[in-house]
Amino acid sequence: MTKSDTPNRMWGGRFTSAPSKLMQALNASIHFDRRLYRQDVAGSKAHAAMLASCGIISDADAEAITTGLDRVAAEIEAGTVSFSADLEDIHMNIESRLHELIGEPAGRLHTGRSRNDQVATDLRLWTREHCDRALFGLARVISALVDQATKGAGMMMPGFTHLQSAQPVTWGHHMLAYAEMMRRDMSRFDDARSRMNECPLGAAALAGTSFPINREMTAEALGFDRPMANSLDAVSDRDFVLDYLSAAAICATHLSRLAEEIVLWVSAQFAFAKLGDSFSTGSSIMPQKRNPDAAELVRARCGRIVGALTTVLMVMKGLPLAYSKDMQEDKEQVFDAVDTLELSLSAMAGMIADLQPRELTMREAAMFGHANATDLADFLVQSTDMPFRTAHRIVGRLVRMACDRDASLGDLPITAYTDCLAECHDPNAIAGAARKLMKDYGQAITNKVSLGGTAPSRVSEQVHYWKEWKSCGPFSHYFRS
Amino acid sequence: MTKSDTPNRMWGGRFTSAPSKLMQALNASIHFDRRLYRQDVAGSKAHAAMLASCGIISDADAEAITTGLDRVAAEIEAGTVSFSADLEDIHMNIESRLHELIGEPAGRLHTGRSRNDQVATDLRLWTREHCDRALFGLARVISALVDQATKGAGMMMPGFTHLQSAQPVTWGHHMLAYAEMMRRDMSRFDDARSRMNECPLGAAALAGTSFPINREMTAEALGFDRPMANSLDAVSDRDFVLDYLSAAAICATHLSRLAEEIVLWVSAQFAFAKLGDSFSTGSSIMPQKRNPDAAELVRARCGRIVGALTTVLMVMKGLPLAYSKDMQEDKEQVFDAVDTLELSLSAMAGMIADLQPRELTMREAAMFGHANATDLADFLVQSTDMPFRTAHRIVGRLVRMACDRDASLGDLPITAYTDCLAECHDPNAIAGAARKLMKDYGQAITNKVSLGGTAPSRVSEQVHYWKEWKSCGPFSHYFRS
Amino acid sequence: MTKSDTPNRMWGGRFTSAPSKLMQALNASIHFDRRLYRQDVAGSKAHAAMLASCGIISDADAEAITTGLDRVAAEIEAGTVSFSADLEDIHMNIESRLHELIGEPAGRLHTGRSRNDQVATDLRLWTREHCDRALFGLARVISALVDQATKGAGMMMPGFTHLQSAQPVTWGHHMLAYAEMMRRDMSRFDDARSRMNECPLGAAALAGTSFPINREMTAEALGFDRPMANSLDAVSDRDFVLDYLSAAAICATHLSRLAEEIVLWVSAQFAFAKLGDSFSTGSSIMPQKRNPDAAELVRARCGRIVGALTTVLMVMKGLPLAYSKDMQEDKEQVFDAVDTLELSLSAMAGMIADLQPRELTMREAAMFGHANATDLADFLVQSTDMPFRTAHRIVGRLVRMACDRDASLGDLPITAYTDCLAECHDPNAIAGAARKLMKDYGQAITNKVSLGGTAPSRVSEQVHYWKEWKSCGPFSHYFRS
Amino acid sequence: MTKSDTPNRMWGGRFTSAPSKLMQALNASIHFDRRLYRQDVAGSKAHAAMLASCGIISDADAEAITTGLDRVAAEIEAGTVSFSADLEDIHMNIESRLHELIGEPAGRLHTGRSRNDQVATDLRLWTREHCDRALFGLARVISALVDQATKGAGMMMPGFTHLQSAQPVTWGHHMLAYAEMMRRDMSRFDDARSRMNECPLGAAALAGTSFPINREMTAEALGFDRPMANSLDAVSDRDFVLDYLSAAAICATHLSRLAEEIVLWVSAQFAFAKLGDSFSTGSSIMPQKRNPDAAELVRARCGRIVGALTTVLMVMKGLPLAYSKDMQEDKEQVFDAVDTLELSLSAMAGMIADLQPRELTMREAAMFGHANATDLADFLVQSTDMPFRTAHRIVGRLVRMACDRDASLGDLPITAYTDCLAECHDPNAIAGAARKLMKDYGQAITNKVSLGGTAPSRVSEQVHYWKEWKSCGPFSHYFRS
Repeated sequence: MTKSDTPNRMWGGRFTSAPSKLMQALNASIHFDRRLYRQDVAGSKAHAAMLASCGIISDADAEAITTGLDRVAAEIEAGTVSFSADLEDIHMNIESRLHELIGEPAGRLHTGRSRNDQVATDLRLWTREHCDRALFGLARVISALVDQATKGAGMMMPGFTHLQSAQPVTWGHHMLAYAEMMRRDMSRFDDARSRMNECPLGAAALAGTSFPINREMTAEALGFDRPMANSLDAVSDRDFVLDYLSAAAICATHLSRLAEEIVLWVSAQFAFAKLGDSFSTGSSIMPQKRNPDAAELVRARCGRIVGALTTVLMVMKGLPLAYSKDMQEDKEQVFDAVDTLELSLSAMAGMIADLQPRELTMREAAMFGHANATDLADFLVQSTDMPFRTAHRIVGRLVRMACDRDASLGDLPITAYTDCLAECHDPNAIAGAARKLMKDYGQAITNKVSLGGTAPSRVSEQVHYWKEWKSCGPFSHYFRS
Repeated sequence: MTKSDTPNRMWGGRFTSAPSKLMQALNASIHFDRRLYRQDVAGSKAHAAMLASCGIISDADAEAITTGLDRVAAEIEAGTVSFSADLEDIHMNIESRLHELIGEPAGRLHTGRSRNDQVATDLRLWTREHCDRALFGLARVISALVDQATKGAGMMMPGFTHLQSAQPVTWGHHMLAYAEMMRRDMSRFDDARSRMNECPLGAAALAGTSFPINREMTAEALGFDRPMANSLDAVSDRDFVLDYLSAAAICATHLSRLAEEIVLWVSAQFAFAKLGDSFSTGSSIMPQKRNPDAAELVRARCGRIVGALTTVLMVMKGLPLAYSKDMQEDKEQVFDAVDTLELSLSAMAGMIADLQPRELTMREAAMFGHANATDLADFLVQSTDMPFRTAHRIVGRLVRMACDRDASLGDLPITAYTDCLAECHDPNAIAGAARKLMKDYGQAITNKVSLGGTAPSRVSEQVHYWKEWKSCGPFSHYFRS
Repeated sequence: MTKSDTPNRMWGGRFTSAPSKLMQALNASIHFDRRLYRQDVAGSKAHAAMLASCGIISDADAEAITTGLDRVAAEIEAGTVSFSADLEDIHMNIESRLHELIGEPAGRLHTGRSRNDQVATDLRLWTREHCDRALFGLARVISALVDQATKGAGMMMPGFTHLQSAQPVTWGHHMLAYAEMMRRDMSRFDDARSRMNECPLGAAALAGTSFPINREMTAEALGFDRPMANSLDAVSDRDFVLDYLSAAAICATHLSRLAEEIVLWVSAQFAFAKLGDSFSTGSSIMPQKRNPDAAELVRARCGRIVGALTTVLMVMKGLPLAYSKDMQEDKEQVFDAVDTLELSLSAMAGMIADLQPRELTMREAAMFGHANATDLADFLVQSTDMPFRTAHRIVGRLVRMACDRDASLGDLPITAYTDCLAECHDPNAIAGAARKLMKDYGQAITNKVSLGGTAPSRVSEQVHYWKEWKSCGPFSHYFRS
Repeated sequence: MTKSDTPNRMWGGRFTSAPSKLMQALNASIHFDRRLYRQDVAGSKAHAAMLASCGIISDADAEAITTGLDRVAAEIEAGTVSFSADLEDIHMNIESRLHELIGEPAGRLHTGRSRNDQVATDLRLWTREHCDRALFGLARVISALVDQATKGAGMMMPGFTHLQSAQPVTWGHHMLAYAEMMRRDMSRFDDARSRMNECPLGAAALAGTSFPINREMTAEALGFDRPMANSLDAVSDRDFVLDYLSAAAICATHLSRLAEEIVLWVSAQFAFAKLGDSFSTGSSIMPQKRNPDAAELVRARCGRIVGALTTVLMVMKGLPLAYSKDMQEDKEQVFDAVDTLELSLSAMAGMIADLQPRELTMREAAMFGHANATDLADFLVQSTDMPFRTAHRIVGRLVRMACDRDASLGDLPITAYTDCLAECHDPNAIAGAARKLMKDYGQAITNKVSLGGTAPSRVSEQVHYWKEWKSCGPFSHYFRS
C-alpha cells in the first residue's frame, strides 16, 4: 500500500480511504503556496515561542521546534526539500519535515492553532511585504520621472486632448503628471498595508481556542499592529488580498497609459522620443524592426491584474462564514499579480530612465495645429471687455481661415485679424498685438503660470518640490534603496 | 434651418456643419449627467466669486452670475428646465440657461476654465458626497449588527467551515464578524474620500491658464483640502472613481456573503432565522411561497458593482494624456454603483434589524455533527503530555466510532474512550473527564476565551467595545443620524 | 389604507402586510422591464390561444384576452398607461391593466404558467430580436468597409506591427481585415440566436404543470424551434443572455480596435484620414479643436459591454436551481449592452462611410522606415542559395548602415550592397538588382501575391468575393435593408 | 562576452546591444509557451513540406528539416532539451536546436513565414485540441448525470426557487437540467471549434509573402478547413482564444451552480446526499470534519476562468492592427483556463458518479412547506370555473391557516376548506377532494406531465432520449472514450 492510498496523516483520523488522485490534483496547493515558506516558518516560530511563554509547551520543545524550523527553512532555500502533493500544502509539508527532524515536539506546534489562521497569517505577511515592494517599485518610477522632469522642465511638446493637439505643454509637466498618479498609488498601497496589518494567528479554526494563548505576543513578534478582534473574521477575511489587488489594478492602469504613450512616442509618426536597444526587440522576418515590446507588455499586463482582481472578487462573492475552500484560489491570483506588477514597475522605471525625448520634433509638433488659439481668446478677453464665449467664437473664425489657407494663425495677414475683430471697439489697436502673440509660440507655455500650470517656472517649482518630497515626505523611506 | 443643423453654439466657431444625429445620440450625456447639477452650480459659483476676487471679472458680473445660477438651480429642482441634447451636457445646458437669464455676463463665467476641469470638479464633489453616504449607510448596518450581537452574545449556533459544522459559535460573535468587515469598508471609503479631496478647478483644458486665478480660493470654497498640483493630471485623472468603485466592490462582497447566509438561514433546511413580511415576497403561481428577494438581490448586485469597476478600469486602460472622450463613460458606472450600493446597504440594515434568530434550532444544529470534537483534542493535550497531532488522531478514531453507531461523542460508552486512550499513561483517569466534557456542549463555547474568541464573555466584551467605538471612535460622526 | 400598505394583489394571499418601501425600491423592475411589453403581450396571446385550443379556457375568454392585450399594447405604445411599482414588473402591470379592461377572464390567463417561464420567454424573444439587430448592424459596417476597400484596393499605407512600420499594405486590405472580424461576429450572433431559440413557456414555476397544455403550439406560435426539454432548466437558464453578451463583448473589442485606429489616423501625427464635421466635436475652451469623439466613445464602450458580461457571469455564479431573484439582474445588463452595441455599430458604419483616406500621406509614411527590407531578404533567398536567416542578418546590417546615414535602403551606395553581400558567390551580380528593388517601393505591395496577401490584385479579388458574399452568402438577408 | 550581451541571433542584425536583463524577464515566453512544442513542430513540418512541394526549398532540405524536427520533439518529450530565455520563445528555441542538429537547412525553414503567423497557427492548433478535450470532459459529466437520472427518475426531492421549497420535483429531473446546460456547452465549444478552424500560416509578418507558397496545402495538412482569407486578420486575430474562454466561462457558471448544490446537499442541514471519502478532506484541527473541498474548488474556479476572459478582452481592447506584443498575454490565460476547466470537468464527473442521494430525507423535505399548494390552486381551476388568480388567493388563505396551526395543508380540517371555498358554487363538493389531493403528496410529481415536466413518466422518457442522443446524436463521437 503506497502512502497515498492511506488517509492523510495530518487529518485522516476519521477517514477510511484516501482522496482520489483527481481530488489531490484539484486540492493540492504545494506547487504554488511553497512561496509562503518563509512566512510560514516565521509564523510557526512566533507561535512556538508564545506557547512556551504561556506554559502551553515546554521551553525545550519550543527550542527544538525553533531550531528545527530554521533547519527546514535552510533546506528549502538550498532546494533540498522535496515537497509532496500528498501533504497538500506548504504548512503540512513543513510540519511533516519538522517531524522527521525533531520527532514528537513537532506534534505540539499545532496546539491552539489551525491551518485556517495559519494560512491567513502567512498570506498577510507575504502580501504586506509585497506592499512594501510595490512602494519601492513606485519610488523608482517616480525618481525616473522626476529626473526626466528636471531635464525637460521647459521642453515644449504638444499637449493632447482626444489625441488632438490642444495646447503646448512641457515634457517635465507631462512627466510629473505621472508622478502624481504614482504618488496616489503609493498612498493606496500604504493604506492597504495599514489596513491589513492585523494578526489572525490564534483565531484557530474559527472560534478561538481554550488554550491560554497570548495573541498580542504573536502579533507583535510578527510586526503586526494588533491581533484581529474577531476570530470568525480572522479566518474568513481576504480583504487584504483585494486591497492589494485593487491598488495594483489602479496602478496598472496608470502604467498602461504611460506605456501607450511610449508606444506612440517611439512610432515613426510621433517620433517624440527614442528607446535604446535594451528596451527594444527585433523581428524574425523584418530586418528593420525595432519594437517597443516592453511598453506593449506593460500596457497589456494591466488586463492581467484586473483579471486577478475580478477573479478574487468573484471567488469571494456569496461565501458563507467562516473559511471555505474556495478561498484557496486567492493565492495564485495575488502571486501572479504581484509578479506582474513588480516586473511592470521595474520595466517602467527602466524605460523612463532610458527614454530620450526628441526636443525638436516635439517643438515643431507643438507649434502645429493652431494649438495656441486659446491664448488668443484669453488675450482678447484680457485686453478688451469681451466675454470669453465671444472671444472663443472670433478665434474659431480665424482658425477656419487659417485652415482654409493652410497657414498658421501667426501667418494670417493682419487684415484677417481686423476683419474678425470688427465688433471690437478698436480692432486695429489689438489686431497687431494679437497677431504678434500668435507668432510667438513660446508664450503659449510661459504664460500658463496658474498653480499647477505648464509654465516652465511652475514646472521647475514642482521639480524642486518633488525632490524635497522624495527625501522628506511621508514615503521618503522608500526612496532610500 | 433648425437649431441642430447649425454648428454648436458653444464650440462650433470653426465648424461648418453640425454633428450627425447619430453623433449626438452617442455623444450627449445630459440624460445622465444632469445628476451633477448641484455640483455644477456650486463649482461655477465658487469660480465666479474667485474671478471677481482676482479682478478678472467685475463684481457686478459675479453677482449676476451667482444670482442667475441660483435661479437655474431652483428651476432644475422645480423640474421646469427642459434640457437639450443639442447642448450635450449639464454644463452647457446650465450655461445656456444662465445666458437666457442674465445675458452677456454668462459669457464671462467660462473664463480661465474648461469643461475638462469643470466636469472633473463636479464629479469629484458628487463622489465625495457619496463616500459620505456610503459611510452613513455602513454605520446603519453596523448598528443593526451590534444590536443583534447584544441580544445574541451567548446564543449558540453552529460555526461552519466548508458549510460543515466546525465548532459552535455564538450569534453575537457571527454578527460582529460582519461588523469588522463593515468597519474596514468604512476605512476604505474614508481613505478614498481623503485621496480624492483635491480640487481640479483651474487646470483649464489641460495646461493651466494665463488668467491670474487663485486656485486655493476655489479649492477652499468647495471644501477641498488643496488644489491638484498638476493640471494635466487634474483633467485626466479618474482615480477617485476607481477608489470609490473598488471600495464599493469589496463592500459588496461582504454584503453578498451576509445575504447568502440570510438566504440559507431562512430556508426550511436551516431555519436559523425568520424574515418578516416586509422583506419577503410571494409567487404569482405558488400560493405558499415566502421568498427572501431582498437578500437575493443584495447578493446579486455585488456582480453589478464589480461590473462597474471592471468597466471603468477597462475604459481607462491605455488612454494617453490628457482628457479623452472615453472618460465620459465613468459617470453612468459610478452613478449606477452608488445607487446599487446605497440601496443594498439600506436593505441590509433593514433585514438585519428585522431578522429573528431561532435560538432553539440553532442550538440543536450546533450540537450535531461532533462539533465539539476539537475540544476533546485540546483537553487531551492539556491533561496529558500528548502532542496535539496525537490527540487529533485519537479523537478522529472516536468520531469514526460515533458515526458508525450514529451516536454523539458524549453518548459513546466509556469503554470507547478507554480503548482509544490506551496509549495514555492512565486511560481510565481521563476517559471519564473526557466523556463528561463531550456531554456538556455548552463548554464548547464558554471555553473559547482567547482574544477574539467566541466565548460569550468575550463577545459581550466586544459588544461593549463596539458601543464605545460607535460613539467615540474615528467614525462616530456617521453614527449620529 | 393606501394600496401599498396591503399585501400584493397578485401573490399576497398568505401575507399579512406589504413589503417595506425599501423592499419595493429594491425589488421593482417595472422601470426597466417595461421594455419587454411587446414580447410579454405576444407571449400571453400565444399562451391564451393555446389554452383555448386545449380546452383549458373557453374560446370567448381567449378572445377577450387577445383583444384586451392588443388594447393594452396600444395604450402602452401611446404612452397612456401609468405603470405601478406596486405591481413590481411589466408582467403584473399588463395583467392588472388587462383585468381593468376585461375583468374575470384576465384571471384565467395565468393558468398553467408562472412568472418564471413567462419572463424567461419574454427575455428570450427580446434577445433573439436584438441578435437580428446586431446582425443588421454588422452588415452595415461590413458594407461600409467593403466600399472603402473597393476604392482603396491598391492604395498604399504602412502596415504596422508594434505600431512600428512593418511592411506596406493597402487601405483596402486593411479594411477587409475588419470585415473578416465582423463576419466572425455575425456567425457568433447567429450561433447565439440558434442556441437560444427554444421556448421556456409551459415550464411553469419550475416543475411543469398538470394542465394539459401544448408546448409545441406556443413554441411554434412564437417562432421558436422547439420547447425547452427540461422545465427546471427552462426557468433557471440565462445562457442566452450570456451568449448575446459574449458575442457582443468580442464584437466590441473589434470595434474598439478600429476606433483606436481612427483616433490615430485623424491625429496630426498620423494624418492618414479625415473625419467630417458630422463625426467630430469642438472644445468649450480651445477654438481650434476637432475631436474624434465618436471614435473615442466606441472605443470606451467596449469596457461597458465587458462590464455587463462580467456582471451577469458573476450573478449566475453558484446559484442553486431553479429560479433565484438574483437572475432579475440580467435584464438591465443586457438592455444596456444592446443599446451600447447597436449605437456603436451605427456610429462605426457612419464613421467608416465618412472617412476620407489621405493617400499621399499614407504612401509617404509607407515608404519610410525601411519597410521594404523584408523584400530584400526574400529577394536574396530567391536569387542566391542563401538561407533566410542569413539573408535576414545581411539586410539587418544594411538597415543599420541606412540608419547611420539617415538614408533609405534605396539611397545607399552600391558599395554598401556589395560589402554586405561579400559572402555571396557573385556580390556584384545581385547588388544592382537588390538596390533597384529597394528603390521601387511599389513592388513591396505588388509582389505579396500569396493567398490573403496585400497585393492589389489579391485585394481586388477579395473585394469581388465580398460583394458576392453579401448578396449570396449565408447572411445575405441582413444585407438587404 | 556572454551570449546574452550580444544582440539576438535570430533578429538582432540591426541592433548594437542586447536587450536588458529586465527586458528579457518581461519578454521571454519560453517558460509557458513550451507547451506549444508539438503544435510548433507539426506546423513547421507542414510548412517545410509545402516549401519543398512548391520548389522553394529542396527536397533534401525539407527532409533534413523534417527528420531534425522529429528529433527535437523527441528530445523535448524526453526532457533533454534545456530551453533558453535568450531565445525568447518555443519557436526560436526549436529552430535554434534544429540548427544545432542539421545546420544550414534549418535557416531555410523560416522562408515565407514569420513568428506572427507561426504563433497564431500553433495556438490555434492547441486551442482546437482543447475544444475537443472540453467536449470529451463535458460528455463524461453528462454521462454521470444521465446515470444518476436513470436511478432517480422517480425519486422525489424538493424543487426550490429562491432556495424556498417551491414544488416537488425528482432527482432525475434535476440531474437532467444540468445535462441540458452541458449540452449547450458542448454546442458552444463545437461552434468555437468550427469558427477557429482556419489556418493563418502563410500570412507571414502581416502582408503575405512574395514566395510562391501554397496555403491550401499547409491548411489541409494541419486539419484546418481553409486558409484565413486576410493576412492582416490572420496575425492580429485572437477571437479563437476569446471563443474558447467565453464558452469556458459559461460552462464554469454551470459547474459552479452544481458545485454549490453539492455543498448544500452534503451539509448537515440539507443532508440530501453523501460524497465518499475520495471527494472529501479533513481538518488539521477539527477531527470530525468531512469537507466537500472538490465541490468548493469547482465553484471557486468559475471566478478564475471569468478572470481569464476579462483579461484577454481587456488586453485586446483598442489594439491597432496588426500584431502587437500585448497579444502574447493570451497564452498564459488560455493555458490556465484550459487546465482549470478540464480539471473541474473531471472532478465534477467524479463527484456526480460518487454522489449518493438520500432518498428518504429528500422525500420528507419535499413534503414540507406546503410545496403542493400550487396543485390545489390548479385543481380548483380545473374543477370549478374559478380563474387562476382567484384560486391562488384562496389557497394563500389556506396556507396562512396551515402556518398558524403549524400543520400541513392535508392536515387542515375539512371546515377550513369549506370556509375558504365559500365563494364556490358547491364548497362541500370540492372541499373533500381538495383535502384528499393535499394529503397525497405523490400526485404533486406524478401529475406534472406537461412536456419537460417533472412527472416520473416524463423523466424516464427523457432518460431514454438522452441515452439515444449519447450514442446517435451529433456529439456521439465524444461519448466514445
